[in-house]
Amino acid sequence: MARTPLWKSIAIALTADIAEARYATGDRLPTEAQLAAKFGVNRHTVRRALSEMADQGLVHARRGAGVFVAARPTDYPIGRRVRFHRNVAAGGQLPSKKLLSLDARAADTREAEALAIAPGDPVLVYDGLSLADNAPIALFSSSFPAARFPGLRDALSETRSVTEALARCGVADYTRQQTRITAKQANATQALHLRVAEGSPILRTIAVNVDADGVPVEYGRTWFAGDRVTLTVDGT
Amino acid sequence: MARTPLWKSIAIALTADIAEARYATGDRLPTEAQLAAKFGVNRHTVRRALSEMADQGLVHARRGAGVFVAARPTDYPIGRRVRFHRNVAAGGQLPSKKLLSLDARAADTREAEALAIAPGDPVLVYDGLSLADNAPIALFSSSFPAARFPGLRDALSETRSVTEALARCGVADYTRQQTRITAKQANATQALHLRVAEGSPILRTIAVNVDADGVPVEYGRTWFAGDRVTLTVDGT
Repeated sequence: MARTPLWKSIAIALTADIAEARYATGDRLPTEAQLAAKFGVNRHTVRRALSEMADQGLVHARRGAGVFVAARPTDYPIGRRVRFHRNVAAGGQLPSKKLLSLDARAADTREAEALAIAPGDPVLVYDGLSLADNAPIALFSSSFPAARFPGLRDALSETRSVTEALARCGVADYTRQQTRITAKQANATQALHLRVAEGSPILRTIAVNVDADGVPVEYGRTWFAGDRVTLTVDGT
Repeated sequence: MARTPLWKSIAIALTADIAEARYATGDRLPTEAQLAAKFGVNRHTVRRALSEMADQGLVHARRGAGVFVAARPTDYPIGRRVRFHRNVAAGGQLPSKKLLSLDARAADTREAEALAIAPGDPVLVYDGLSLADNAPIALFSSSFPAARFPGLRDALSETRSVTEALARCGVADYTRQQTRITAKQANATQALHLRVAEGSPILRTIAVNVDADGVPVEYGRTWFAGDRVTLTVDGT
C-alpha cells in the first residue's frame, strides 16, 4: 500500500473529527495556523487538506470568516425498505447518482443463487456512485434478472433510480430480505471513486430485495465510505 | 503505521478468503507448498501464517491430512433484541466473554445523554472481549446507570453476561432503540485484543438498550473484527 501523503492524513483526520461530530455542521474549524500547530506541519499542507475537503463538499470557506463544516456524515437507515433517495433526503442532503456502467451479462453462481435464476441466465448489472450533496458516499453494483425486466435497462438509464425503474417495470414495492454488513479496506479503484485513501475502512453491504410475492428482484452490493456514512438499524 | 510482516499479510489474506466463504468450515486449505507458490514466499512463512491462524482458532491441522478451516466467520444479527450469547450459539459456535475491567466513574456528556442521566452521575463501565470458539470477535465497552443498579457490579463480575446481570437487577427484558454502525481502523490496543493487524478494518457499533418502559439501561460500544464478523439485519 502506498504511503499516504501528509496533507491527505490531515484531511482524513479532520474528516474523522467531523464524522465523530467533534465538529458539527456549521461549526468553524480552527484557523490554518492553529491546525498547522496541532498537526506539526506548515500552513501550506493544511491548506491543501482543507482544499481537498472542500472539493468533497465536507467544508466550505467563507472569505474573511474561516472554514466551516458543510456536510454532516450521512445517517443511512438499514431495514425492511432501504431507499437511497429517501435516506439521503431525510438527512437534509441532496441525493444524486452517477452511472458508471449498465451492462447485461451471464449470471455468476452467486448472483444466480441470490436471484433464484440459473447460472448463465442474463443479468443486467448497474454499477454506480451514490452522492450526498455532491460528495461520494457509496459505490454500488446491483444485478437484476434481465429476462423478467426487458424495459429495465432504458428505465435505469433514464431515471438512475432503482425504485423508479422497477416501478416502471411493474414492481410497485420491494423489501429487503436481509442485509449483510462487513468492514473492508478500500482498494485502489474504490478509493479513487470514493475519494478516500487506499486502505481506508469501508462498510460493505450485501442485500437481496424481493417483490411483494417474495421473488428476488435485485441483488446489490454497496461499499460505503466508512468515515462519511453511519448505517443505522432501528430496533424499537 | 508499522509495516505488516509477510507472514501476517498471508494470514490476513487467508482469513479474508475464509470470511468470504471461499473456503468453508471443514474445507482443507491448499498445501503449504501450494500456498508458498501462490504467495511467492517460502514454506516457513506460510507455516508461520497458518500457526497464527490456528492460535486464533480459525484453522486446525490434522496430522498427515492437512490444515482445515475450523471456524466460520460469525453472523451476528442486529435487530430489536441483540444477545451476544444467543447470536454466537445460533451460529454453532461457543460464546464466551473475557472481563477486561469493571469500574465505576462519573458519566461523560455522551454517556449521560444516552442513559438519560446527569453528566457526573455514576456509571458502571464493563470493558471486555467477546469470543466465539475461543477466537476474539469483538471488544466492547458498556456503561450502565450505577445508581439504579447497585447490585450490577457483582452480578456482572459473577456472570459476565449483561442479560443475566440485568435480569438479577430486575430488568427481565430489554430492547435496542437503535444501532449505529461505522467502519474504523483498528488502533494498536484494539489490534492487540482482537489479534488483527493495526489498521485492519473493524465494525464499530453504538447502541442504547432500553427496558420495557423505554428507560435506557445500557449504552454500549462494540468493535468487531471486520474479517471475522458479518452483522446481519433482517428486513422481512
